[in-house]
Amino acid sequence: MFGMAVNDHWRDGAAGSFLLIGGAEDKDGECFILREFVRLAGGERAGIAVITTATRLPGEVGEVYRRVFLRLGAGEVWPVHLDSREKAGDPHHIAILQRATGVFFTGGDQLRITRILGDTPFERSLKANGSGRLIIGGTSAGAAAMGEIMITGGRGGYPPGRNAVKMAPGLGLLGGVVIDQHFAQRGRIGRLLAAVASHPHVLGIGIDEDTAIAVSPGGRFTVLGSGTVTVVDGRSITRTGAAGSLLGATLHVLAPGYGYDLKARKPRLPEAPRSVSR
Amino acid sequence: MFGMAVNDHWRDGAAGSFLLIGGAEDKDGECFILREFVRLAGGERAGIAVITTATRLPGEVGEVYRRVFLRLGAGEVWPVHLDSREKAGDPHHIAILQRATGVFFTGGDQLRITRILGDTPFERSLKANGSGRLIIGGTSAGAAAMGEIMITGGRGGYPPGRNAVKMAPGLGLLGGVVIDQHFAQRGRIGRLLAAVASHPHVLGIGIDEDTAIAVSPGGRFTVLGSGTVTVVDGRSITRTGAAGSLLGATLHVLAPGYGYDLKARKPRLPEAPRSVSR
Repeated sequence: MFGMAVNDHWRDGAAGSFLLIGGAEDKDGECFILREFVRLAGGERAGIAVITTATRLPGEVGEVYRRVFLRLGAGEVWPVHLDSREKAGDPHHIAILQRATGVFFTGGDQLRITRILGDTPFERSLKANGSGRLIIGGTSAGAAAMGEIMITGGRGGYPPGRNAVKMAPGLGLLGGVVIDQHFAQRGRIGRLLAAVASHPHVLGIGIDEDTAIAVSPGGRFTVLGSGTVTVVDGRSITRTGAAGSLLGATLHVLAPGYGYDLKARKPRLPEAPRSVSR
Repeated sequence: MFGMAVNDHWRDGAAGSFLLIGGAEDKDGECFILREFVRLAGGERAGIAVITTATRLPGEVGEVYRRVFLRLGAGEVWPVHLDSREKAGDPHHIAILQRATGVFFTGGDQLRITRILGDTPFERSLKANGSGRLIIGGTSAGAAAMGEIMITGGRGGYPPGRNAVKMAPGLGLLGGVVIDQHFAQRGRIGRLLAAVASHPHVLGIGIDEDTAIAVSPGGRFTVLGSGTVTVVDGRSITRTGAAGSLLGATLHVLAPGYGYDLKARKPRLPEAPRSVSR
């Protein structure tokens, strides 16, 4: 019954490409996920803007990603320290988006991202990424902030009672979804269920650490990394009630290689003959 | 597609009444759940056999339940220390089942229950409880052992990979189900999903602490207590794969007052006007 609304929501987001990571991705070893981000951004032709807005240690965090992206073969990397709405209106920073082939949001506090970047020229420029020219990446808070709704807190744990989760609007670059991260590691199935119970038209996506979804402009994603991605589809929910009741949620657990079609709301099997993507 | 098999499995169990508790039920305060057990067993006419097989401290544990059941108004309480298969064949202990109106299995190690009681005259006599004359209760291990399959170990946590859970056949007094306990408190959604992914025809029931399901002879249960009961229906699963993939599981979270029909495999709403049972 929410099918059309979902598709509309999905379309409201930028029709670009995304690589959204559940946090704690490998930065020292094979760097499978970050390597894929560099590849998607154009490899040696990549120009990557690292947005450190979420973190209170922008210098250190920006430098970590600058080094790893360069080590993985990116052409250029520009840490961009947008720590005020004023800076997010600065034409100099908007200009970086014109030069960049990839934008990467670091971890930290997702509310800093929406508070500082929401409805600024910088965000609007990102949302105008309709051609899918840019690949937009994010890890942890930087992934959570991309959704239409973002989870800002919660008990973790289980069951998914109404007070189990705190939510706020996300940037909505990827519409129609709520993304949770550090998913298995912090036992967040309960709060994701609670979020979806409150907003059944929004698809819940829980991403484990060192795991990512690579979203195509057409709205299909594939799982990569070392963990799994859990999708909670609330369209099948027939009833939610006091004290956390929730009847009929549909749950998919997707290992690497599996995927999901955000428009059709259907899981996708790994493509043969490559059964998993790593 | 597994519907008929499920119903058959369900019918294979005793068509009796059950009160199965997720462990850590209140024994000092209002004792809402244990009070209900005494009521179902006949109140002041109740004769309750307390089976301490699961625990290595049968004297202490048996005494705890003897006192609380008597305090809650039970007519008679008999702790029965069946710690060997020989004792489980003793006609004296079988005779207690003929006098009892309720049988209560304490917590401990569920494998002790199946190892000591499985396929003994005592178990067969319990399974012959076809008239539903006896109410069969169990808490923690004592609840887990009642299912067709029981979970004997697992990582807890998430995601539900194939190695996330260890299983063994249960007594099967309640057929067609696998029961997990301490469910929210120990973060066991992952291992219950893994169990159901392995055996999609068996219904997964995760019971929180101080929470219970009261199962009628007709196979309907109602949730009571302070937590929730999670039902995982694997019939809708379209695919399970390596590394824990699981597509299309159906999940219900049932608060007190809500229920489930094991035959129809459908959740049940609280009965009006009593919206919850406490």
